[in-house]
Amino acid sequence: MPRTELEYPKEPYGTVKRYSPRASYALRTIHTIINTSPILHVSFNDPKSPFPTILPMLGQMGSFSRPSADEGDVLDLYLHGYVSSRLINISRQPSDASSTSPPPPPPGLPVCIAASHLDGLVLALTPNAHSYNYRSAVLFGHATLVSDPSERLYAMQLITDGVVPGRWEGSRVPPNKGELSSTSVLKVRIATGSAKIREGPPGDDRADKEDAEVTGRVWTGVVPVYQVLGEPVAGPYNEVAEVPGYLGEYVRETNAVMKEAAFEAARKVVVKKGGEDE
Amino acid sequence: MPRTELEYPKEPYGTVKRYSPRASYALRTIHTIINTSPILHVSFNDPKSPFPTILPMLGQMGSFSRPSADEGDVLDLYLHGYVSSRLINISRQPSDASSTSPPPPPPGLPVCIAASHLDGLVLALTPNAHSYNYRSAVLFGHATLVSDPSERLYAMQLITDGVVPGRWEGSRVPPNKGELSSTSVLKVRIATGSAKIREGPPGDDRADKEDAEVTGRVWTGVVPVYQVLGEPVAGPYNEVAEVPGYLGEYVRETNAVMKEAAFEAARKVVVKKGGEDE
Repeated sequence: MPRTELEYPKEPYGTVKRYSPRASYALRTIHTIINTSPILHVSFNDPKSPFPTILPMLGQMGSFSRPSADEGDVLDLYLHGYVSSRLINISRQPSDASSTSPPPPPPGLPVCIAASHLDGLVLALTPNAHSYNYRSAVLFGHATLVSDPSERLYAMQLITDGVVPGRWEGSRVPPNKGELSSTSVLKVRIATGSAKIREGPPGDDRADKEDAEVTGRVWTGVVPVYQVLGEPVAGPYNEVAEVPGYLGEYVRETNAVMKEAAFEAARKVVVKKGGEDE
Repeated sequence: MPRTELEYPKEPYGTVKRYSPRASYALRTIHTIINTSPILHVSFNDPKSPFPTILPMLGQMGSFSRPSADEGDVLDLYLHGYVSSRLINISRQPSDASSTSPPPPPPGLPVCIAASHLDGLVLALTPNAHSYNYRSAVLFGHATLVSDPSERLYAMQLITDGVVPGRWEGSRVPPNKGELSSTSVLKVRIATGSAKIREGPPGDDRADKEDAEVTGRVWTGVVPVYQVLGEPVAGPYNEVAEVPGYLGEYVRETNAVMKEAAFEAARKVVVKKGGEDE
Protein backbone atom coordinates (compact mmCIF):
# COMPACT_ATOMS: atom_id res chain seq x y z
CA MET A 1 0.00 0.00 0.00
CA PRO A 2 1.59 3.31 -0.98
CA ARG A 3 1.92 5.80 1.84
CA THR A 4 3.44 9.19 2.32
CA GLU A 5 7.01 9.15 3.58
CA LEU A 6 7.39 11.42 6.61
CA GLU A 7 10.12 14.05 6.57
CA TYR A 8 11.83 16.03 9.32
CA PRO A 9 11.34 19.81 9.26
CA LYS A 10 14.14 21.75 7.58
CA GLU A 11 15.43 23.94 10.43
CA PRO A 12 18.26 26.39 9.67
CA TYR A 13 20.63 24.49 12.00
CA GLY A 14 19.73 21.11 10.55
CA THR A 15 19.84 21.58 6.81
CA VAL A 16 22.62 20.27 4.60
CA LYS A 17 24.19 23.30 2.98
CA ARG A 18 26.55 21.74 0.47
CA TYR A 19 25.77 19.37 -2.40
CA SER A 20 22.17 19.33 -1.30
CA PRO A 21 21.02 16.82 -3.97
CA ARG A 22 22.64 14.25 -1.69
CA ALA A 23 20.55 15.28 1.32
CA SER A 24 17.51 13.45 2.64
CA TYR A 25 15.07 14.41 5.38
CA ALA A 26 13.04 11.17 5.21
CA LEU A 27 12.53 9.64 8.65
CA ARG A 28 12.94 6.12 7.23
CA THR A 29 16.33 6.87 5.63
CA ILE A 30 17.67 8.65 8.72
CA HIS A 31 16.36 6.11 11.25
CA THR A 32 17.76 3.18 9.23
CA ILE A 33 21.24 4.74 9.16
CA ILE A 34 21.05 5.32 12.94
CA ASN A 35 19.76 1.80 13.70
CA THR A 36 22.42 0.04 11.61
CA SER A 37 25.25 2.02 13.19
CA PRO A 38 26.82 0.00 16.03
CA ILE A 39 28.34 3.15 17.55
CA LEU A 40 26.62 6.55 17.71
CA HIS A 41 28.49 9.76 18.51
CA VAL A 42 26.55 11.94 20.93
CA SER A 43 27.47 15.59 21.44
CA PHE A 44 26.36 17.82 24.32
CA ASN A 45 27.55 20.84 26.27
CA ASP A 46 28.80 20.41 29.80
CA PRO A 47 28.43 23.82 31.52
CA LYS A 48 31.77 23.22 33.25
CA SER A 49 33.71 22.65 30.02
CA PRO A 50 34.99 25.20 27.48
CA PHE A 51 34.45 22.59 24.74
CA PRO A 52 31.48 20.59 23.47
CA THR A 53 31.84 16.91 24.38
CA ILE A 54 31.36 13.81 22.21
CA LEU A 55 30.70 10.39 23.74
CA PRO A 56 30.43 7.14 21.78
CA MET A 57 27.19 5.37 22.78
CA LEU A 58 24.80 2.62 21.69
CA GLY A 59 21.31 3.52 20.59
CA GLN A 60 18.20 2.46 18.74
CA MET A 61 15.09 4.29 17.50
CA GLY A 62 11.86 3.09 19.13
CA SER A 63 8.41 3.96 20.40
CA PHE A 64 7.50 2.80 23.90
CA SER A 65 3.90 3.94 23.50
CA ARG A 66 3.57 2.17 20.13
CA PRO A 67 6.18 -0.60 19.96
CA SER A 68 4.91 -1.78 16.55
CA ALA A 69 5.94 1.51 14.92
CA ASP A 70 8.42 1.01 12.07
CA GLU A 71 11.50 2.96 10.96
CA GLY A 72 9.43 5.37 8.87
CA ASP A 73 7.39 6.52 11.87
CA VAL A 74 7.95 9.26 14.44
CA LEU A 75 10.28 7.63 16.99
CA ASP A 76 12.42 8.44 20.00
CA LEU A 77 16.09 7.56 20.23
CA TYR A 78 17.06 5.43 23.23
CA LEU A 79 20.71 5.69 24.24
CA HIS A 80 22.86 3.58 26.51
CA GLY A 81 26.57 4.00 27.07
CA TYR A 82 29.32 3.01 29.39
CA VAL A 83 30.73 6.49 29.69
CA SER A 84 27.50 8.35 29.95
CA SER A 85 27.63 9.31 33.64
CA ARG A 86 28.40 12.95 32.93
CA LEU A 87 25.77 13.16 30.24
CA ILE A 88 23.24 11.51 32.52
CA ASN A 89 23.96 13.84 35.43
CA ILE A 90 23.51 16.90 33.24
CA SER A 91 20.32 15.58 31.64
CA ARG A 92 18.82 15.19 35.14
CA GLN A 93 18.95 18.95 35.56
CA PRO A 94 16.06 20.98 34.18
CA SER A 95 16.96 22.70 30.92
CA ASP A 96 17.80 26.39 30.92
CA ALA A 97 14.64 28.40 30.30
CA SER A 98 16.02 31.82 31.19
CA SER A 99 14.52 33.66 28.23
CA THR A 100 10.75 33.69 28.41
CA SER A 101 9.58 35.69 25.42
CA PRO A 102 10.08 32.89 22.87
CA PRO A 103 8.37 29.60 23.78
CA PRO A 104 10.40 27.79 26.46
CA PRO A 105 12.60 24.98 25.14
CA PRO A 106 11.41 21.38 25.65
CA PRO A 107 12.72 19.71 28.81
CA GLY A 108 16.01 17.88 28.58
CA LEU A 109 19.57 18.38 27.49
CA PRO A 110 20.11 19.59 23.88
CA VAL A 111 22.09 16.88 22.06
CA CYS A 112 23.26 16.07 18.56
CA ILE A 113 23.67 12.45 17.45
CA ALA A 114 25.69 11.39 14.41
CA ALA A 115 26.06 8.05 12.61
CA SER A 116 28.33 7.54 9.60
CA HIS A 117 28.83 4.45 7.46
CA LEU A 118 31.86 4.41 5.15
CA ASP A 119 31.05 2.53 1.91
CA GLY A 120 34.08 3.22 -0.25
CA LEU A 121 37.22 5.23 -1.01
CA VAL A 122 36.57 7.25 -4.17
CA LEU A 123 39.91 7.72 -5.94
CA ALA A 124 39.81 10.41 -8.63
CA LEU A 125 42.39 11.91 -10.97
CA THR A 126 43.06 14.87 -8.68
CA PRO A 127 43.24 14.98 -4.87
CA ASN A 128 40.48 17.63 -4.90
CA ALA A 129 38.00 15.28 -6.57
CA HIS A 130 38.72 12.46 -4.11
CA SER A 131 35.75 11.52 -1.95
CA TYR A 132 34.11 8.75 0.05
CA ASN A 133 31.00 6.75 -0.63
CA TYR A 134 29.08 7.03 2.64
CA ARG A 135 25.73 7.20 4.37
CA SER A 136 25.60 9.64 7.26
CA ALA A 137 22.79 10.87 9.48
CA VAL A 138 22.48 13.47 12.17
CA LEU A 139 19.68 14.00 14.69
CA PHE A 140 19.01 16.94 17.00
CA GLY A 141 16.89 16.60 20.12
CA HIS A 142 16.46 16.80 23.87
CA ALA A 143 17.70 14.00 26.12
CA THR A 144 16.07 13.02 29.41
CA LEU A 145 16.73 10.13 31.76
CA VAL A 146 14.13 7.35 31.51
CA SER A 147 12.63 6.90 34.99
CA ASP A 148 9.81 4.40 34.29
CA PRO A 149 11.25 0.89 34.91
CA SER A 150 9.06 -0.70 32.22
CA GLU A 151 10.19 1.84 29.63
CA ARG A 152 13.79 1.18 30.69
CA LEU A 153 13.22 -2.55 30.20
CA TYR A 154 11.74 -1.86 26.74
CA ALA A 155 14.80 0.20 25.81
CA MET A 156 17.26 -2.39 27.17
CA GLN A 157 15.69 -5.08 24.99
CA LEU A 158 15.58 -2.74 21.98
CA ILE A 159 19.28 -1.89 22.32
CA THR A 160 20.39 -5.50 23.05
CA ASP A 161 18.48 -6.81 20.03
CA GLY A 162 20.02 -3.95 18.03
CA VAL A 163 23.45 -5.53 18.62
CA VAL A 164 22.32 -9.05 17.60
CA PRO A 165 18.62 -9.63 16.82
CA GLY A 166 17.27 -12.30 19.19
CA ARG A 167 20.09 -11.89 21.70
CA TRP A 168 17.74 -10.65 24.46
CA GLU A 169 15.76 -13.92 24.48
CA GLY A 170 19.01 -15.83 23.94
CA SER A 171 20.55 -14.51 27.17
CA ARG A 172 19.65 -14.63 30.88
CA VAL A 173 16.56 -12.38 31.13
CA PRO A 174 14.75 -10.63 32.64
CA PRO A 175 17.35 -8.47 34.36
CA ASN A 176 17.17 -8.69 38.14
CA LYS A 177 16.23 -5.69 40.27
CA GLY A 178 19.83 -4.59 40.75
CA GLU A 179 20.57 -4.76 37.02
CA LEU A 180 17.41 -2.86 36.16
CA SER A 181 18.06 -0.10 38.67
CA SER A 182 21.76 0.27 37.81
CA THR A 183 21.10 0.74 34.09
CA SER A 184 20.74 4.29 32.87
CA VAL A 185 18.88 4.89 29.63
CA LEU A 186 18.49 8.25 27.91
CA LYS A 187 15.54 9.05 25.69
CA VAL A 188 15.99 11.70 23.03
CA ARG A 189 12.92 13.47 21.70
CA ILE A 190 13.91 14.33 18.15
CA ALA A 191 13.49 17.94 16.97
CA THR A 192 14.85 17.36 13.49
CA GLY A 193 17.47 15.49 11.49
CA SER A 194 18.97 14.89 8.10
CA ALA A 195 20.92 12.33 6.11
CA LYS A 196 23.52 12.62 3.40
CA ILE A 197 24.44 9.84 1.01
CA ARG A 198 27.18 9.66 -1.64
CA GLU A 199 27.46 6.73 -4.03
CA GLY A 200 28.95 6.04 -7.43
CA PRO A 201 32.29 6.32 -9.19
CA PRO A 202 34.66 9.33 -9.10
CA GLY A 203 33.70 12.49 -10.95
CA ASP A 204 36.57 14.61 -12.20
CA ASP A 205 36.57 17.89 -14.10
CA ARG A 206 36.46 17.61 -17.88
CA ALA A 207 39.93 19.18 -18.29
CA ASP A 208 41.51 16.32 -16.34
CA LYS A 209 39.42 13.61 -17.98
CA GLU A 210 40.53 14.88 -21.41
CA ASP A 211 44.21 15.02 -20.47
CA ALA A 212 45.67 11.78 -21.87
CA GLU A 213 48.89 12.20 -19.89
CA VAL A 214 46.84 12.18 -16.67
CA THR A 215 44.30 9.47 -17.54
CA GLY A 216 47.11 7.30 -18.90
CA ARG A 217 48.87 7.11 -15.55
CA VAL A 218 46.33 7.74 -12.72
CA TRP A 219 44.08 4.80 -11.77
CA THR A 220 40.55 5.96 -10.92
CA GLY A 221 37.75 4.05 -9.27
CA VAL A 222 36.33 3.01 -5.93
CA VAL A 223 37.73 0.79 -3.20
CA PRO A 224 34.57 -0.62 -1.59
CA VAL A 225 34.71 -0.59 2.24
CA TYR A 226 32.50 -2.72 4.46
CA GLN A 227 32.40 -4.08 7.98
CA VAL A 228 32.71 -7.83 8.52
CA LEU A 229 31.53 -9.89 11.47
CA GLY A 230 34.16 -12.62 11.93
CA GLU A 231 33.72 -16.22 13.04
CA PRO A 232 32.48 -16.01 16.67
CA VAL A 233 35.19 -16.76 19.27
CA ALA A 234 33.86 -18.62 22.34
CA GLY A 235 34.76 -17.09 25.70
CA PRO A 236 36.59 -18.83 28.57
CA TYR A 237 33.46 -19.94 30.46
CA ASN A 238 31.27 -20.74 27.45
CA GLU A 239 29.68 -24.19 27.73
CA VAL A 240 27.44 -24.11 24.64
CA ALA A 241 29.27 -26.07 21.93
CA GLU A 242 27.48 -24.64 18.91
CA VAL A 243 27.08 -21.01 17.95
CA PRO A 244 23.31 -20.42 18.29
CA GLY A 245 21.26 -20.27 15.10
CA TYR A 246 20.12 -16.65 15.46
CA LEU A 247 23.76 -15.56 15.83
CA GLY A 248 25.18 -17.61 12.97
CA GLU A 249 22.38 -16.44 10.72
CA TYR A 250 22.88 -12.79 11.69
CA VAL A 251 26.63 -13.00 10.97
CA ARG A 252 26.07 -14.59 7.53
CA GLU A 253 23.22 -12.28 6.49
CA THR A 254 24.85 -9.07 7.73
CA ASN A 255 28.12 -9.88 5.97
CA ALA A 256 26.35 -10.57 2.67
CA VAL A 257 24.25 -7.39 2.89
CA MET A 258 27.12 -5.10 3.89
CA LYS A 259 29.51 -6.36 1.19
CA GLU A 260 26.80 -6.15 -1.48
CA ALA A 261 25.90 -2.57 -0.42
CA ALA A 262 29.52 -1.39 -0.70
CA PHE A 263 30.01 -2.91 -4.17
CA GLU A 264 26.61 -1.67 -5.32
CA ALA A 265 27.53 1.88 -4.25
CA ALA A 266 30.86 1.58 -6.09
CA ARG A 267 29.17 0.49 -9.33
CA LYS A 268 26.17 2.81 -9.12
CA VAL A 269 25.47 4.78 -12.27
CA VAL A 270 24.92 8.34 -11.12
CA VAL A 271 22.96 10.71 -13.31
CA LYS A 272 24.54 14.09 -12.80
CA LYS A 273 22.33 17.09 -12.25
CA GLY A 274 25.18 19.53 -12.74
CA GLY A 275 27.45 21.03 -10.14
CA GLU A 276 30.69 19.71 -8.82
CA ASP A 277 30.88 16.05 -7.91
CA GLU A 278 32.56 15.73 -4.57
CA MET B 1 66.27 3.98 22.35
CA PRO B 2 63.82 4.21 25.24
CA ARG B 3 62.07 7.52 25.54
CA THR B 4 59.39 9.00 27.68
CA GLU B 5 55.88 8.72 26.25
CA LEU B 6 54.17 12.09 26.25
CA GLU B 7 50.72 12.35 27.85
CA TYR B 8 47.92 14.89 27.53
CA PRO B 9 47.04 16.85 30.71
CA LYS B 10 44.11 15.43 32.68
CA GLU B 11 41.61 18.30 32.56
CA PRO B 12 38.29 17.86 34.41
CA TYR B 13 36.36 17.95 31.11
CA GLY B 14 38.67 15.50 29.39
CA THR B 15 39.12 12.68 31.88
CA VAL B 16 37.48 9.29 31.56
CA LYS B 17 35.31 8.89 34.62
CA ARG B 18 34.19 5.29 34.39
CA TYR B 19 36.30 2.11 34.26
CA SER B 20 39.40 4.29 34.27
CA PRO B 21 41.86 1.35 33.95
CA ARG B 22 40.82 1.35 30.29
CA ALA B 23 41.77 5.00 29.81
CA SER B 24 44.94 6.27 28.19
CA TYR B 25 46.30 9.79 27.87
CA ALA B 26 49.35 8.84 25.76
CA LEU B 27 49.69 11.03 22.68
CA ARG B 28 50.86 8.05 20.59
CA THR B 29 47.80 5.93 21.45
CA ILE B 30 45.33 8.76 20.85
CA HIS B 31 46.95 10.04 17.64
CA THR B 32 47.10 6.51 16.17
CA ILE B 33 43.38 5.97 16.78
CA ILE B 34 42.62 9.34 15.13
CA ASN B 35 44.92 8.71 12.13
CA THR B 36 43.51 5.24 11.40
CA SER B 37 39.91 6.45 11.55
CA PRO B 38 38.65 7.19 8.00
CA ILE B 39 35.85 9.38 9.39
CA LEU B 40 36.17 11.76 12.33
CA HIS B 41 33.17 13.27 14.10
CA VAL B 42 33.69 16.96 14.83
CA SER B 43 31.44 18.80 17.28
CA PHE B 44 31.11 22.56 17.65
CA ASN B 45 28.56 25.16 18.73
CA ASP B 46 26.89 27.33 16.15
CA PRO B 47 25.68 30.47 17.98
CA LYS B 48 22.50 30.38 15.88
CA SER B 49 21.57 26.81 16.88
CA PRO B 50 19.98 25.56 20.11
CA PHE B 51 21.93 22.29 19.68
CA PRO B 52 25.60 21.40 19.36
CA THR B 53 26.41 20.21 15.83
CA ILE B 54 28.37 17.17 14.66
CA LEU B 55 29.91 16.98 11.19
CA PRO B 56 31.70 13.94 9.76
CA MET B 57 35.08 15.04 8.40
CA LEU B 58 38.46 13.69 7.28
CA GLY B 59 41.55 14.50 9.31
CA GLN B 60 45.14 13.63 10.12
CA MET B 61 47.55 14.62 12.87
CA GLY B 62 50.62 16.50 11.62
CA SER B 63 53.20 19.18 12.25
CA PHE B 64 53.79 21.73 9.51
CA SER B 65 56.76 23.27 11.36
CA ARG B 66 58.33 19.83 11.93
CA PRO B 67 56.98 17.42 9.29
CA SER B 68 59.22 14.59 10.53
CA ALA B 69 57.40 14.48 13.90
CA ASP B 70 55.89 11.07 14.64
CA GLU B 71 52.58 10.03 16.23
CA GLY B 72 54.02 10.25 19.74
CA ASP B 73 54.88 13.95 19.35
CA VAL B 74 52.90 17.11 19.97
CA LEU B 75 50.86 17.54 16.78
CA ASP B 76 48.03 19.57 15.30
CA LEU B 77 44.94 18.04 13.75
CA TYR B 78 44.25 19.05 10.14
CA LEU B 79 40.62 18.69 9.07
CA HIS B 80 38.96 18.71 5.69
CA GLY B 81 35.32 18.04 5.04
CA TYR B 82 32.71 18.36 2.36
CA VAL B 83 30.12 19.82 4.69
CA SER B 84 32.36 22.10 6.68
CA SER B 85 31.23 25.45 5.31
CA ARG B 86 29.34 26.39 8.48
CA LEU B 87 32.19 25.27 10.70
CA ILE B 88 34.65 27.20 8.55
CA ASN B 89 32.60 30.38 8.63
CA ILE B 90 32.35 30.28 12.41
CA SER B 91 36.04 29.50 12.87
CA ARG B 92 36.85 32.64 10.88
CA GLN B 93 35.32 34.74 13.63
CA PRO B 94 37.50 35.64 16.60
CA SER B 95 36.68 33.55 19.65
CA ASP B 96 34.55 35.03 22.42
CA ALA B 97 36.83 36.64 25.01
CA SER B 98 34.14 38.50 26.94
CA SER B 99 35.41 37.61 30.42
CA THR B 100 38.81 39.11 31.07
CA SER B 101 39.78 38.08 34.60
CA PRO B 102 40.80 34.50 33.66
CA PRO B 103 43.40 34.28 30.86
CA PRO B 104 41.69 34.82 27.49
CA PRO B 105 40.94 31.59 25.58
CA PRO B 106 43.23 30.70 22.65
CA PRO B 107 42.02 31.94 19.26
CA GLY B 108 39.71 29.70 17.29
CA LEU B 109 36.50 27.79 17.62
CA PRO B 110 36.26 25.29 20.52
CA VAL B 111 35.77 21.84 19.01
CA CYS B 112 35.67 18.23 20.11
CA ILE B 113 36.80 15.44 17.77
CA ALA B 114 35.93 11.78 18.26
CA ALA B 115 37.14 8.59 16.55
CA SER B 116 35.83 5.13 17.42
CA HIS B 117 36.88 1.73 16.06
CA LEU B 118 34.58 -1.21 16.76
CA ASP B 119 36.61 -4.42 17.23
CA GLY B 120 34.01 -6.89 18.45
CA LEU B 121 30.57 -7.66 19.87
CA VAL B 122 31.05 -8.99 23.40
CA LEU B 123 28.17 -11.36 24.14
CA ALA B 124 27.83 -12.20 27.84
CA LEU B 125 25.36 -14.27 29.87
CA THR B 126 23.25 -11.24 30.80
CA PRO B 127 22.33 -8.20 28.70
CA ASN B 128 23.91 -5.97 31.37
CA ALA B 129 27.35 -7.56 30.92
CA HIS B 130 27.22 -7.20 27.12
CA SER B 131 29.84 -4.87 25.71
CA TYR B 132 31.94 -4.01 22.68
CA ASN B 133 35.63 -4.39 22.07
CA TYR B 134 36.66 -0.96 20.82
CA ARG B 135 39.34 1.71 20.61
CA SER B 136 38.01 5.24 20.94
CA ALA B 137 39.72 8.61 21.21
CA VAL B 138 38.54 12.13 21.82
CA LEU B 139 40.43 15.41 21.36
CA PHE B 140 39.54 18.92 22.53
CA GLY B 141 41.00 22.01 20.90
CA HIS B 142 40.60 25.26 19.01
CA ALA B 143 40.04 25.27 15.25
CA THR B 144 41.24 27.99 12.90
CA LEU B 145 41.22 28.26 9.14
CA VAL B 146 44.65 27.65 7.56
CA SER B 147 45.51 30.77 5.52
CA ASP B 148 49.11 30.00 4.46
CA PRO B 149 48.94 28.28 1.02
CA SER B 150 52.03 26.14 1.69
CA GLU B 151 50.57 24.89 4.98
CA ARG B 152 47.31 24.13 3.16
CA LEU B 153 49.26 22.15 0.55
CA TYR B 154 51.03 20.25 3.35
CA ALA B 155 47.67 19.39 4.94
CA MET B 156 46.08 18.35 1.63
CA GLN B 157 48.89 15.88 1.00
CA LEU B 158 48.77 14.64 4.62
CA ILE B 159 45.01 14.00 4.39
CA THR B 160 45.13 12.44 0.88
CA ASP B 161 47.93 10.08 1.90
CA GLY B 162 45.89 9.32 5.03
CA VAL B 163 43.21 7.80 2.78
CA VAL B 164 45.68 5.69 0.76
CA PRO B 165 49.43 6.11 1.44
CA GLY B 166 51.15 7.20 -1.77
CA ARG B 167 47.95 8.41 -3.42
CA TRP B 168 49.13 12.03 -3.55
CA GLU B 169 52.10 11.17 -5.78
CA GLY B 170 49.91 8.68 -7.64
CA SER B 171 47.41 11.35 -8.71
CA ARG B 172 47.55 14.58 -10.72
CA VAL B 173 49.53 16.97 -8.49
CA PRO B 174 50.27 19.67 -7.59
CA PRO B 175 46.78 21.17 -7.36
CA ASN B 176 46.31 24.14 -9.64
CA LYS B 177 45.70 27.62 -8.26
CA GLY B 178 41.93 27.26 -8.34
CA GLU B 179 42.02 23.94 -6.49
CA LEU B 180 44.41 25.28 -3.89
CA SER B 181 42.36 28.40 -3.22
CA SER B 182 39.00 26.59 -3.15
CA THR B 183 40.13 24.06 -0.54
CA SER B 184 39.43 24.91 3.07
CA VAL B 185 41.53 23.27 5.74
CA LEU B 186 41.03 23.63 9.47
CA LYS B 187 43.87 23.31 11.95
CA VAL B 188 43.02 22.29 15.49
CA ARG B 189 45.46 23.19 18.26
CA ILE B 190 44.92 20.40 20.77
CA ALA B 191 44.22 21.34 24.40
CA THR B 192 43.87 17.79 25.66
CA GLY B 193 42.53 14.35 24.79
CA SER B 194 42.03 10.81 25.96
CA ALA B 195 41.55 7.29 24.66
CA LYS B 196 39.59 4.33 25.92
CA ILE B 197 40.22 0.75 24.88
CA ARG B 198 38.29 -2.44 25.70
CA GLU B 199 39.54 -5.86 24.66
CA GLY B 200 39.09 -9.45 25.75
CA PRO B 201 36.26 -11.92 26.33
CA PRO B 202 33.01 -11.25 28.23
CA GLY B 203 33.11 -10.89 32.01
CA ASP B 204 29.95 -11.89 33.86
CA ASP B 205 29.16 -11.82 37.54
CA ARG B 206 30.11 -14.95 39.49
CA ALA B 207 26.45 -15.77 40.31
CA ASP B 208 25.64 -16.14 36.61
CA LYS B 209 28.85 -18.00 35.76
CA GLU B 210 28.04 -20.54 38.52
CA ASP B 211 24.44 -21.03 37.40
CA ALA B 212 24.55 -24.23 35.31
CA GLU B 213 21.07 -23.61 33.90
CA VAL B 214 22.31 -20.29 32.45
CA THR B 215 25.77 -21.37 31.28
CA GLY B 216 24.25 -24.52 29.76
CA ARG B 217 22.06 -22.54 27.38
CA VAL B 218 23.59 -19.08 26.76
CA TRP B 219 26.52 -18.93 24.31
CA THR B 220 29.18 -16.42 25.42
CA GLY B 221 32.08 -15.03 23.50
CA VAL B 222 33.11 -12.35 21.05
CA VAL B 223 32.10 -11.74 17.45
CA PRO B 224 35.19 -10.00 16.01
CA VAL B 225 34.32 -6.97 13.85
CA TYR B 226 36.66 -5.42 11.31
CA GLN B 227 36.56 -3.23 8.25
CA VAL B 228 37.50 -4.71 4.88
CA LEU B 229 38.75 -2.92 1.77
CA GLY B 230 37.23 -4.81 -1.17
CA GLU B 231 38.72 -5.47 -4.60
CA PRO B 232 39.07 -2.02 -6.26
CA VAL B 233 36.35 -1.27 -8.85
CA ALA B 234 37.64 0.75 -11.82
CA GLY B 235 35.62 3.87 -12.68
CA PRO B 236 34.02 4.69 -16.06
CA TYR B 237 36.91 6.78 -17.43
CA ASN B 238 39.77 4.76 -15.93
CA GLU B 239 42.42 3.88 -18.53
CA VAL B 240 45.02 2.25 -16.29
CA ALA B 241 44.59 -1.52 -16.67
CA GLU B 242 46.29 -2.62 -13.46
CA VAL B 243 45.54 -1.47 -9.93
CA PRO B 244 48.72 0.42 -8.94
CA GLY B 245 51.17 -1.33 -6.61
CA TYR B 246 50.83 1.10 -3.69
CA LEU B 247 47.05 0.63 -3.72
CA GLY B 248 47.03 -3.16 -4.01
CA GLU B 249 49.60 -3.40 -1.26
CA TYR B 250 47.66 -1.04 1.01
CA VAL B 251 44.45 -3.06 0.52
CA ARG B 252 46.19 -6.37 1.32
CA GLU B 253 48.16 -5.07 4.29
CA THR B 254 45.30 -3.12 5.84
CA ASN B 255 42.94 -6.08 5.57
CA ALA B 256 45.44 -8.41 7.23
CA VAL B 257 46.18 -5.97 10.06
CA MET B 258 42.53 -5.09 10.76
CA LYS B 259 41.34 -8.71 10.84
CA GLU B 260 44.24 -9.78 13.04
CA ALA B 261 43.59 -6.90 15.48
CA ALA B 262 39.92 -7.84 15.89
CA PHE B 263 40.69 -11.54 16.55
CA GLU B 264 43.57 -10.64 18.85
CA ALA B 265 41.25 -8.40 20.89
CA ALA B 266 38.67 -11.20 21.06
CA ARG B 267 41.23 -13.73 22.36
CA LYS B 268 43.10 -11.37 24.68
CA VAL B 269 43.63 -12.71 28.19
CA VAL B 270 42.63 -9.88 30.48
CA VAL B 271 44.01 -9.78 34.00
CA LYS B 272 41.27 -8.33 36.14
CA LYS B 273 42.14 -5.68 38.65
CA GLY B 274 38.76 -5.90 40.36
CA GLY B 275 35.68 -3.90 39.59
CA GLU B 276 32.88 -4.63 37.23
CA ASP B 277 33.78 -5.72 33.72
CA GLU B 278 31.66 -3.85 31.28
